[in-house]
Amino acid sequence: MASVPSVSYSITVRLEVPAGGRAVSLLTHAVENSGGIVTALDVTNAGHEKLRIDVTCAARDTEHAQQIVDALDAVEGIVIHKVSDRTFLMHLGGKIEMQSKVPLRNRDELSMAYTPGVARVSMAIARNPDDARRLTIKRNSVAVVTDGSAVLGLGNIGPAAALPVMEGKAALFKRFAGIDAWPICLDTQDVDQIVEIVRAIAPGFGGINLEDISAPRCFEVERRLRKLLDIPVFHDDQHGTAIVVLAALTNALRVVGKSLADVRIAMAGAGAAGSAVLRLLLAAGAKHIVVCDYKGAVHLGRDDLDESLRWIASNTNAEAYSGDLRGAVRDADVFIGVSAPGILTGDDIATMAKDAVVFALANPEPEVAPDDAREHAAVVATGRSDYPNQINNVLAFPGVFRGLLDAQADEVTDAMLLAAAGALARVVTDEELGPNYIIPSVFHPDVTTAVAAAVRESAGGKVRSTEA
Amino acid sequence: MASVPSVSYSITVRLEVPAGGRAVSLLTHAVENSGGIVTALDVTNAGHEKLRIDVTCAARDTEHAQQIVDALDAVEGIVIHKVSDRTFLMHLGGKIEMQSKVPLRNRDELSMAYTPGVARVSMAIARNPDDARRLTIKRNSVAVVTDGSAVLGLGNIGPAAALPVMEGKAALFKRFAGIDAWPICLDTQDVDQIVEIVRAIAPGFGGINLEDISAPRCFEVERRLRKLLDIPVFHDDQHGTAIVVLAALTNALRVVGKSLADVRIAMAGAGAAGSAVLRLLLAAGAKHIVVCDYKGAVHLGRDDLDESLRWIASNTNAEAYSGDLRGAVRDADVFIGVSAPGILTGDDIATMAKDAVVFALANPEPEVAPDDAREHAAVVATGRSDYPNQINNVLAFPGVFRGLLDAQADEVTDAMLLAAAGALARVVTDEELGPNYIIPSVFHPDVTTAVAAAVRESAGGKVRSTEA
Repeated sequence: MASVPSVSYSITVRLEVPAGGRAVSLLTHAVENSGGIVTALDVTNAGHEKLRIDVTCAARDTEHAQQIVDALDAVEGIVIHKVSDRTFLMHLGGKIEMQSKVPLRNRDELSMAYTPGVARVSMAIARNPDDARRLTIKRNSVAVVTDGSAVLGLGNIGPAAALPVMEGKAALFKRFAGIDAWPICLDTQDVDQIVEIVRAIAPGFGGINLEDISAPRCFEVERRLRKLLDIPVFHDDQHGTAIVVLAALTNALRVVGKSLADVRIAMAGAGAAGSAVLRLLLAAGAKHIVVCDYKGAVHLGRDDLDESLRWIASNTNAEAYSGDLRGAVRDADVFIGVSAPGILTGDDIATMAKDAVVFALANPEPEVAPDDAREHAAVVATGRSDYPNQINNVLAFPGVFRGLLDAQADEVTDAMLLAAAGALARVVTDEELGPNYIIPSVFHPDVTTAVAAAVRESAGGKVRSTEA
Repeated sequence: MASVPSVSYSITVRLEVPAGGRAVSLLTHAVENSGGIVTALDVTNAGHEKLRIDVTCAARDTEHAQQIVDALDAVEGIVIHKVSDRTFLMHLGGKIEMQSKVPLRNRDELSMAYTPGVARVSMAIARNPDDARRLTIKRNSVAVVTDGSAVLGLGNIGPAAALPVMEGKAALFKRFAGIDAWPICLDTQDVDQIVEIVRAIAPGFGGINLEDISAPRCFEVERRLRKLLDIPVFHDDQHGTAIVVLAALTNALRVVGKSLADVRIAMAGAGAAGSAVLRLLLAAGAKHIVVCDYKGAVHLGRDDLDESLRWIASNTNAEAYSGDLRGAVRDADVFIGVSAPGILTGDDIATMAKDAVVFALANPEPEVAPDDAREHAAVVATGRSDYPNQINNVLAFPGVFRGLLDAQADEVTDAMLLAAAGALARVVTDEELGPNYIIPSVFHPDVTTAVAAAVRESAGGKVRSTEA
């Protein structure tokens, strides 16, 4: 995957070397000659004859990590004891925990937090259900719900294997927006069951973040839940992506001096992310869009259209173009790929209009090699962190839910998504804006607050009293 | 409810008094003359003419709190600004939160906790599902599941109103056993749906704690889930209570020098708690038990027996006693009530055998007034914290789940419940044991570790490696 050594493939090798001689420098050379990078070297036990050393090094992938270990093993005098994978170490025992916010040091505190005191709080909510958003975690809690059917790029790996990803998502919710999210990994992929389960668990949550549920089931799950529930339901793979794409495209068009209503847009990918990106672009005023899936352009003349593709055909491609992606890209101002690796070349990008904008978001391998695209396009964005202009959902979902929870919103609307995208785009000032800076870093301190404020305001901004 | 001022009915009154004169001492007198107790007096703003003071005082109940405020209001020169309820203040925004255990300070840490690094962890679990107990929160997480149908003594108040109780339960899990519990409050009271939902959410949890689900539905929910799931399912209202009752009874019988196999036991209550207490007493070797419900003794001659009562009739009351509770108590060595307030008097207790043991566990008002019972019984226990010998589930469930999680148990067995009760009883040493100390305090430092060790050992004690 990664072409350079990465911390996400980082190992710590515990080994013993003779205390004298050149063994220590030999081991550093062994790692470097194998293409690894030594990021830490800790002597954990020093004796007269032997040193025990923990060598931490970044590798390109799992195979490369093994090559580094083999190279160390081949050095005269070095004895390998144990190889630890830093990413796995970080996951041991899970990445999140529950914490009590109230002290439970003595009988009095127990009596207030639990029986008998808690009974009065429960009765207050029984009398006035709205008080749940004031007196319980519902004020700040989000369920991160998956069925494990479309996890990252890994596919249908099931609910247990999805759990580390959902824990990571929960950790991001806290890190970027102070939200208390908890993963709910469902051992069912039946739409009716998913809808019924999420409906039933909703009382304890102020919002539902659907995650990594495969298309087209994700559309129906979200649509039905939005009707059933009085809390916002947001499928991040769809709308998180759409918000960040629209924000980035807004700024890319600022760079090249074109307007959204005028540009010709070619899209690759009609799945969960593609559909949502398309809908938000249309809501934002884009007019000339052709969407391609793996069979070519989506148009009303095709006889294989399901409900989702039919909607796309009815709302795009006014000229009924029926060719392939390569033809759709020709003369287009914008290409947005949320599809598959390597489906376009630099030569294809060269056929685009002047000052072309290319968003090649397939991860980890984009639709077109970013370096090739940059030879012919004015602005290039990817989903990767090792290129400029990373389209990353972390820029959207924390602020969106912060705004929704603060407004005690009972739904999420297109107007809120547009407001979020606008706010995210405006985090980049005119002075900062450029071909390599159309979207802020996920660590930019203003991102969450700006997005949250826009969503809260769009939701009506009703912030209720927190006084007892 | 409480007959003396209690911290669970504690209010803070913000008021202004003239800076000079006797106003401050008058306000203290006003609270005390109303029967309240001043627990704190903070001057929050001192001026030449006026003082602003926060007076915190304990009251007997809500009505009494209002009487105190009225008395303060009547004092010459005092102006009441705001009255806050300390219990409600403690619940504002909820009592628990989610915390990340991993740092997310920079790009490298993001890459390990989330994409791309997390993909390898997910794939490891997809290949070997057992790794979920090593690499995710499943190792230490418990779902606290309720349908809000039998919350505390409040009845069927629904899932939202149950949430403060479930949050409190989660906080207790952490406080006493370091367990990460999360409340799941279900907006359904249909047995089939509850079973299906809990089955489906199980992948993310290492155990299921059912809570405050009314009988007889709770029996079927638990029985079916235990068959379906490979993690332990424990209805605390049943088995937590049963463990603590058996432990306390074991020690009470140590005090009076009788044996469980020999004593005659009269029980009041055949609901969730009563059934579970009965089953565990039988499993522990009790032989002579008569159970009464509100219609009198349960025996096979009754024509109103449901499945649960039929089981009770078939396994107790060998002499087919068909009278009322009062008759069942006569000559009994032990009375155990998990039923309703005030159904027995001191005179009834006087008819029991010599050195009688009385567990009057209805809460907040016991089956017989504890002071009356103590005139005639050798040992008296209640569910209340203002008498000796409190039967409190907090003595059992944290240690039980700690043991289950540490053993990575896939079920909970009667043998484990018996082991837990035995370990809990043995926390009270021979030197400490007495009529007023048959069960340790919930704050006794050995309780959780002793119970957990017993359960872990009973579960086979398989503690798997935590190394990466």
